[in-house]
Amino acid sequence: MSLRSIFMALLLWSGSAYSAPVAIIIHGGAGTITRENLTPELEQAYKDALGSAIEFGYEQLHHGRPSEEVVVAVIKRLEDSPLFNAGHGAVLTHEEKVELDASIMRGSDLNAGAIAAVTNIKNPIELALSVMNHSKHVMLAGAGAEQFAREQGFSEVPNTYFVTPRRLEQVQRAKAREASATIPKPEKYGTVGAVALDQAGTISAGTSTGGMTNKRFGRVGDAPVIGAGTYADNTVCGISATGHGEYFIRAAVAHDICARALYQGISLQAAANHVVMNKLVDMGGDGGIVALNPAGELVYAFNTEGMYRAGIDASGNRMLGIYKDDGNNESAEQR
Amino acid sequence: MSLRSIFMALLLWSGSAYSAPVAIIIHGGAGTITRENLTPELEQAYKDALGSAIEFGYEQLHHGRPSEEVVVAVIKRLEDSPLFNAGHGAVLTHEEKVELDASIMRGSDLNAGAIAAVTNIKNPIELALSVMNHSKHVMLAGAGAEQFAREQGFSEVPNTYFVTPRRLEQVQRAKAREASATIPKPEKYGTVGAVALDQAGTISAGTSTGGMTNKRFGRVGDAPVIGAGTYADNTVCGISATGHGEYFIRAAVAHDICARALYQGISLQAAANHVVMNKLVDMGGDGGIVALNPAGELVYAFNTEGMYRAGIDASGNRMLGIYKDDGNNESAEQR
Repeated sequence: MSLRSIFMALLLWSGSAYSAPVAIIIHGGAGTITRENLTPELEQAYKDALGSAIEFGYEQLHHGRPSEEVVVAVIKRLEDSPLFNAGHGAVLTHEEKVELDASIMRGSDLNAGAIAAVTNIKNPIELALSVMNHSKHVMLAGAGAEQFAREQGFSEVPNTYFVTPRRLEQVQRAKAREASATIPKPEKYGTVGAVALDQAGTISAGTSTGGMTNKRFGRVGDAPVIGAGTYADNTVCGISATGHGEYFIRAAVAHDICARALYQGISLQAAANHVVMNKLVDMGGDGGIVALNPAGELVYAFNTEGMYRAGIDASGNRMLGIYKDDGNNESAEQR
Repeated sequence: MSLRSIFMALLLWSGSAYSAPVAIIIHGGAGTITRENLTPELEQAYKDALGSAIEFGYEQLHHGRPSEEVVVAVIKRLEDSPLFNAGHGAVLTHEEKVELDASIMRGSDLNAGAIAAVTNIKNPIELALSVMNHSKHVMLAGAGAEQFAREQGFSEVPNTYFVTPRRLEQVQRAKAREASATIPKPEKYGTVGAVALDQAGTISAGTSTGGMTNKRFGRVGDAPVIGAGTYADNTVCGISATGHGEYFIRAAVAHDICARALYQGISLQAAANHVVMNKLVDMGGDGGIVALNPAGELVYAFNTEGMYRAGIDASGNRMLGIYKDDGNNESAEQR
């Protein structure tokens, strides 16, 4: 029995105002994010957005709010920010429209909800939660998902609500490059995601994205695919991924990390390192993940130049980073 | 070294016409399939369809055809048959139309292709193969997937091509029941699927379906979700699932079975039994799976009254069954 658990048992026994530990971790996308291509002002803006999102989520968890609601509330803030590729400010399709994907999973009962290719719902993560809580289905796509949203009382926004000048310019550049040469790999995978552990011990994970710039053909990435972009199981993990979605689907990244930790008896961090730094690298799949284990320890791994990330573990320790050499990446990898 | 491997080595060494072992296993759906609700004529029709499909696939494999092509060719036959819930004869949506899902995965490189909610492509499994081979994406949905099909030279069929009187009557009954009482669980999950091992040692798996009768809201089931309805990895497995898709997504059934076998070092059959007979049963998820391991042994498991299934293992042994007490279910479970 560790000192910490003895201390906790004493607190519980003494009938004090002890509440169970909570934790949260979020990401705002991974990719070739370097100090050279981020102005100090933009860097600060990202840090502010990430920092305020985790503080907000942490407080909600301390107030006893269930983890799936906190995940949704936190992701909603990131969707509303033009900084991230989700909701307002999402990347544009080849047709210069926005098509949004999102998913959520609750680790206590493995319930899940996901939506793909939605064009008129302000906060896709809220619709994913509604699919989980108010439908007998897990995954709804396109116009059918929007019909479900209407029946659930969601109000619609015009597709132009999501469009920002920055993203319009970005897709037009991508289309020009496409016309002139071979298709370049996208430089940044701007999915957002959150994983939270609540006082009841439930881990929930959620992911939301506009997908890939210049995407065509109703392309669905990993974000709405349970097992690829999102997975949660109270016994072992909650995970949200960001990266080149096709590879994340093929490697079933989120589920594979949980499965390795559970069946091989290794730490969630070791499992994440293997899948992200070895398996995905061998396949050629760029990206990363954030995760929590049932003890509320922060876990993350990415094989790109950077990943927007922040978290607060069960002991209240803060983590916030953008670049590879930021913060406690080393110590996390050694865990 | 086993007797069998010594024998094989001798055969190879002698320069004889020995070719590497091949195997195939298929399913045509699971559910409350009992002798009472299947006429002898219909039973024979199912057996004929399953039997001729595996013989055809087995011959193709012996001719050296790659497993992904054989999987597609075999599933195509099942899609064209009105007996199965895929392609012609698929179940109808709430709007009395047909929306088809399919996926394929190749175990040698973990490449995969999937399409969801397609309404005008005669053989959805061929489109899934085309997504795998001719696009940079894994999953395409709806009108976008159909646009990709047109650009790939697929011809279109009217949606009425898929509609059969039996399925029309079925959805109308479902809608009448829905109006009168609580929503009943569907009685049969009529997905089709195939897994093949070719002479190069590559395992491919594919799945195709019309989904659930009376489905709404652009519902996507497990069939096009890599990791849920389909998974293949040469090191351990090829799997195709059929059942109540929502549960299969939440449990990441296909990937979880492969992961348990690989990481726990148990047999693929033992892993399948655990996931299908314990985990899914605990969750309330009806259905089953067929699978091959790299040695070309037939693996299957289902927690319903019946599952249409047939296969030929690497030694040429045939298996064909419909009901729980058919064939070598016992011996398979003991493996």
